[in-house]
Amino acid sequence: MTKETNIHPFDAAIYLTKENEKYIGKTSDAYKNMIGPFGGVTAASLLKAIIDHPERKGEPISLTVNFAAAIKDGKFSIQPRLRRSTRTTQHWYVELKQKGSVSITATAVLARRKDTWSETEARMPEVPLAGELASIPVEGLPAWVGQYDMRIVKGIPDLANPKIVEDSTTLQWIKDVPDRPLDVFSLTSICDAFFPRIFVKRNEMGLIGTVSLTVHFHADLKTIGENGERHILAKAWANKFYNRFFDQTGEVWSEEGELLATTNQMVYFRR
Amino acid sequence: MTKETNIHPFDAAIYLTKENEKYIGKTSDAYKNMIGPFGGVTAASLLKAIIDHPERKGEPISLTVNFAAAIKDGKFSIQPRLRRSTRTTQHWYVELKQKGSVSITATAVLARRKDTWSETEARMPEVPLAGELASIPVEGLPAWVGQYDMRIVKGIPDLANPKIVEDSTTLQWIKDVPDRPLDVFSLTSICDAFFPRIFVKRNEMGLIGTVSLTVHFHADLKTIGENGERHILAKAWANKFYNRFFDQTGEVWSEEGELLATTNQMVYFRR
Repeated sequence: MTKETNIHPFDAAIYLTKENEKYIGKTSDAYKNMIGPFGGVTAASLLKAIIDHPERKGEPISLTVNFAAAIKDGKFSIQPRLRRSTRTTQHWYVELKQKGSVSITATAVLARRKDTWSETEARMPEVPLAGELASIPVEGLPAWVGQYDMRIVKGIPDLANPKIVEDSTTLQWIKDVPDRPLDVFSLTSICDAFFPRIFVKRNEMGLIGTVSLTVHFHADLKTIGENGERHILAKAWANKFYNRFFDQTGEVWSEEGELLATTNQMVYFRR
Repeated sequence: MTKETNIHPFDAAIYLTKENEKYIGKTSDAYKNMIGPFGGVTAASLLKAIIDHPERKGEPISLTVNFAAAIKDGKFSIQPRLRRSTRTTQHWYVELKQKGSVSITATAVLARRKDTWSETEARMPEVPLAGELASIPVEGLPAWVGQYDMRIVKGIPDLANPKIVEDSTTLQWIKDVPDRPLDVFSLTSICDAFFPRIFVKRNEMGLIGTVSLTVHFHADLKTIGENGERHILAKAWANKFYNRFFDQTGEVWSEEGELLATTNQMVYFRR
């Protein structure tokens, strides 16, 4: 019981137990979305199964998660398979199943980082500090939104005023609720923690679902950890909405201005 | 022999024969890179194995190809596995093997498109027409470069003047040599047909290798085909070079201004 009360809801949501070659997890009520669990937490669970695996070497460079079917409340199994190792990299294929059916496929590249010449070309957006902004109210929204403190600089759907706007960009400061030091799992989850671009674009809700999410990691685990419990700045925009699918393209920055990750997803929309 | 002389080198390079559950291909001398074949053609071959598969339904929405090991000259096998189908989507996992070892893992999402509200938010770069620009000389470059007519607006490595520049963006018109009508395979290949960002950033060559390539398709097969044998406009930039890996982020536009695809990759660099 002590354990139950002390564990952070995010850690509880991505908690896995090993059974033979598989990792068993359970959906979290705290991170419920409209249909099934919030995809960011599911992506983090898949990455955790790789990181927990005894054969794992190196740090995440790239993760792609394809959401094939809605996950039902309850247990799921994750099976990571190391398909090829080189001196520097590891290549993983992962499946998440429920009752024998594949709900998610994913691939990941891990690698040993090494100090090299480095330079950031992208520029961190100039925005007010998180402390200068109000947190968005979360009442009436899916449970997972309440697991984050979001302070939105721009790009929040104005449902009272549905109309198509030119620019679907969202800029938001975000961190876990309650506070939790940033790590590669929460960073992965935050890469999916945006209102869907089409909600911002049209200022109305609708039926949507991510089909493919890619995260590219631009910092090592140590640098990610250095953000601690502070907010991180997340930016997302869309390039094109077209015949049932749109993209969501994003950047995630540490409070101190390090580009931690870039992310891209393709999202289904009904109409 | 007639067949040999009439087939386009790109179609020859992605040509596959079926043996049981596998598709057998062969590396193409025409598309040789510095080490192994040009990755764009390999990515196109993986997509072709899916599209050729009798169970395939729908059009490509998302493709992620993870390059685990250099492909050796000669034969390879590609095995596409349909992992889950829904009413709208298909989820594929694909492996490319040589002599029993996995060289590449890939996933793809296909879907039935449907006419919906659509809008492009990205803006096509304003550039001179292809006809107003000279083709780059290809002597001394890997064979695959000679399979394309590239007319570079900006962002070509200036090897005579090695220095780090602020902006690694390349803008180029590109099409197959000899002429070939654009299709989803050549589009996929062109998503990888850039000088690596680090060559442009530092104006020098170096040892690099793509580890993960993602293509998001923003047009249907019909729209892609409508570009015919004309050039398409490709733009690529980098967000961050960091401790052995950098990203390459890109857009591909039809001559008429349709955004056909966006693409992202993570690339290893030695130093």
